Amino acid sequence: VEAGNREEAYRLAQPLHAADIADLFELTPREDRAALAIALGDLLSADVLAEINDWVRDDIVDALPAAQIADLAEQMETDDAVAMIEDMEEDEQQAVLAELDPEDRAVIEDALSYPEESAGRIMQRELVAVPEHITVGQLIDYLRENQDLTTEFWEIFVVDPAHRPIGTCQLSWIMRTPRNISISDVMKREQTLIPVDMDQEEVALRFQKYALISAAVVDDAGRLVGVITADDVVHIVQEEAGEDILRLSGAGEGDINEPIADSYKARVRWLIANLGTAMVASFIIAQFGAAIETMVALAILMPIVASIGGNAGTQTLAVTVRALATNQLTQSNTVRSIWREVRVAVLIGATVAVIAGLGAGLVFTNWTLGGVIAAAILFNILIAGLSGVAIPVFLDRLDQDPAVSSSIFVTMITDSMGFLIFLGLAVFAGLAG
Amino acid sequence: VEAGNREEAYRLAQPLHAADIADLFELTPREDRAALAIALGDLLSADVLAEINDWVRDDIVDALPAAQIADLAEQMETDDAVAMIEDMEEDEQQAVLAELDPEDRAVIEDALSYPEESAGRIMQRELVAVPEHITVGQLIDYLRENQDLTTEFWEIFVVDPAHRPIGTCQLSWIMRTPRNISISDVMKREQTLIPVDMDQEEVALRFQKYALISAAVVDDAGRLVGVITADDVVHIVQEEAGEDILRLSGAGEGDINEPIADSYKARVRWLIANLGTAMVASFIIAQFGAAIETMVALAILMPIVASIGGNAGTQTLAVTVRALATNQLTQSNTVRSIWREVRVAVLIGATVAVIAGLGAGLVFTNWTLGGVIAAAILFNILIAGLSGVAIPVFLDRLDQDPAVSSSIFVTMITDSMGFLIFLGLAVFAGLAG
Repeated sequence: VEAGNREEAYRLAQPLHAADIADLFELTPREDRAALAIALGDLLSADVLAEINDWVRDDIVDALPAAQIADLAEQMETDDAVAMIEDMEEDEQQAVLAELDPEDRAVIEDALSYPEESAGRIMQRELVAVPEHITVGQLIDYLRENQDLTTEFWEIFVVDPAHRPIGTCQLSWIMRTPRNISISDVMKREQTLIPVDMDQEEVALRFQKYALISAAVVDDAGRLVGVITADDVVHIVQEEAGEDILRLSGAGEGDINEPIADSYKARVRWLIANLGTAMVASFIIAQFGAAIETMVALAILMPIVASIGGNAGTQTLAVTVRALATNQLTQSNTVRSIWREVRVAVLIGATVAVIAGLGAGLVFTNWTLGGVIAAAILFNILIAGLSGVAIPVFLDRLDQDPAVSSSIFVTMITDSMGFLIFLGLAVFAGLAG
Repeated sequence: VEAGNREEAYRLAQPLHAADIADLFELTPREDRAALAIALGDLLSADVLAEINDWVRDDIVDALPAAQIADLAEQMETDDAVAMIEDMEEDEQQAVLAELDPEDRAVIEDALSYPEESAGRIMQRELVAVPEHITVGQLIDYLRENQDLTTEFWEIFVVDPAHRPIGTCQLSWIMRTPRNISISDVMKREQTLIPVDMDQEEVALRFQKYALISAAVVDDAGRLVGVITADDVVHIVQEEAGEDILRLSGAGEGDINEPIADSYKARVRWLIANLGTAMVASFIIAQFGAAIETMVALAILMPIVASIGGNAGTQTLAVTVRALATNQLTQSNTVRSIWREVRVAVLIGATVAVIAGLGAGLVFTNWTLGGVIAAAILFNILIAGLSGVAIPVFLDRLDQDPAVSSSIFVTMITDSMGFLIFLGLAVFAGLAG
């Protein structure tokens, strides 16, 4: 399409939903996105930009003049506008902010003053807050008469004179209540308030735990400053869970739309670290050079011990990282979890060890070798289970993200210990060296 | 607490929110959960059970009589009741269903007739649907007068005489509209309808794409049968993304609350498969036994090639699996994605190869060996990049879950090819054998 003429592209995109136009941009090769953005003109609405993948949006935003971006930002809800502007370069950011009208500019600058991925960045400022003493009828009249109120809200927040939230009212409760009843009799006083500097991952867990549709965001003084809705949280949960997978595998913030240079940087760092840990394992093998020369079967079998250990470690690690991310693993059940993993590891280790031992014994007609590999696999799976829980928990205690670096440590331990136990036992059993 | 007396436990739990009581159960060791359930008595409400981890709920439900479970199920929203009952054993399920009153029983049996993880299982039946011709005032009066309507709803569905949805009305739009306006002038006709048999993962993607708070579920004839809300979707997204991590690492449905026997079964299967692939790699090494005997350095260095390749493959795999899960990778951009990964792999491969080659050359003062390991790493990273995209995409085309088995294939390829290329090049370069 974008290879052809602009009018044709415009005509084809016209009947599409904003989210589908966003998809269209994502499917377009990078170099053609700017052209498509210009061809679509006014079809490239605030809604489209709000829906689009971050990396793809960067490509488009780069192609548009600051004034047009400012225009689009003004039509967006504050959280979407912030998401767009926060990813821009410092100087482009300033150019866009300068084009905004003063009121919107103040709101966005305020949002940008909160840390990245905090509640302050993802909340909307558009909300309806009313004092406690009004009745349902007065509320409905107020909503009907004030034309500049937002039309998109799911709950009404009841606030005290200092603008601190004291209760929440679902719209459905209000609609089912006669006009003369006071709001304070309808509202729920028990609330889940989100501090403005709370991390978005924590926000998502609150939403999940209390099955929220929207929640009030409060500043340090407890004043209502914004609202977060479940549709934004769906997005965050998707993003955060994806991040955990990518971090566990050392792929950084990876995404198929990420520029190649960024992917390169994120991944090469990890592989160089991996090269370091692999060299530790090689160093251990080097200590058993004489044994290997005497019995080549050791070199043939040793990758099996390391590989099984590495995989068993990764399994435990994945379970632990998920449990930490969803707040299921806390101080009080760490010991129980470790004990649980030890028991699972003993069962799994015994099974795999017997199979591998029998296999090696038969193939090399050497039952000592079979016994050595079986024992090494059993021990290594046990070590994998222990380190698969202990390392992420330890990193979590140090306030490090357990998803980021656990797997490199776990793999290093299972590789090195796998070689050490297998080759060490072989020498000890008098097989070689 | 649960070691002490029951009244004490009851007293302590009384002020807690349902979600916090649910957490309390999750933190309690398995064997004490039944006792705690009995001690808490009526504090173990429908809300608590709705919030609790699936495995933990099984423990509790097993401890309670069918009549009490039926009682709790009647107080739950249909989606939560279904989630509880669907996990029970066939005979317990029948016992509980028999205790339900006929109306609730029909609803739950209907839900259970839909496939697991489909929209029909997760939707609520409680909703408000009105005909098109009524006015805002009539709607509000209807809501106020009908006491048996649900009080928890976020949107009103407008239906035709055949009960097919023709539009959706956010409550906030209704509240901002004068009483004499017709609902058909307020509603949005453009809707996202969810077919009742749609997979929950697909439902979650729709919610994310169109930023929905609630959506109508329709049967084959297009009739409105239920509603799915964003709070349930938050839960599903969390669950599905977690499943991808666990599957990629071969940990099954793992969860720290899963019974040990289940964890054992899920993981041991994977590790036995892994043993098989490791044996393929060993077989390849065995072909080069003579070369290793001549030059032990080959045995020392070969795990580095395999390990780096495996990690590079896992990185690409994680990015690809996420892109497939979020519908970002489709037929039209597969070739572009593969080409992208090839370029990233060449850059990364060149960097890591140079470092490893220089290192090996220096340590063994053998520059041919350095060159061989560098070339082997470069090739293996390239193979890792290609298979990291191609294998999950291929499995996805075959309608297999790419998260489940991709990593075992990718690791097999990178291990085997790593050893083959490295040892093969070494022999070819005349280093040994």
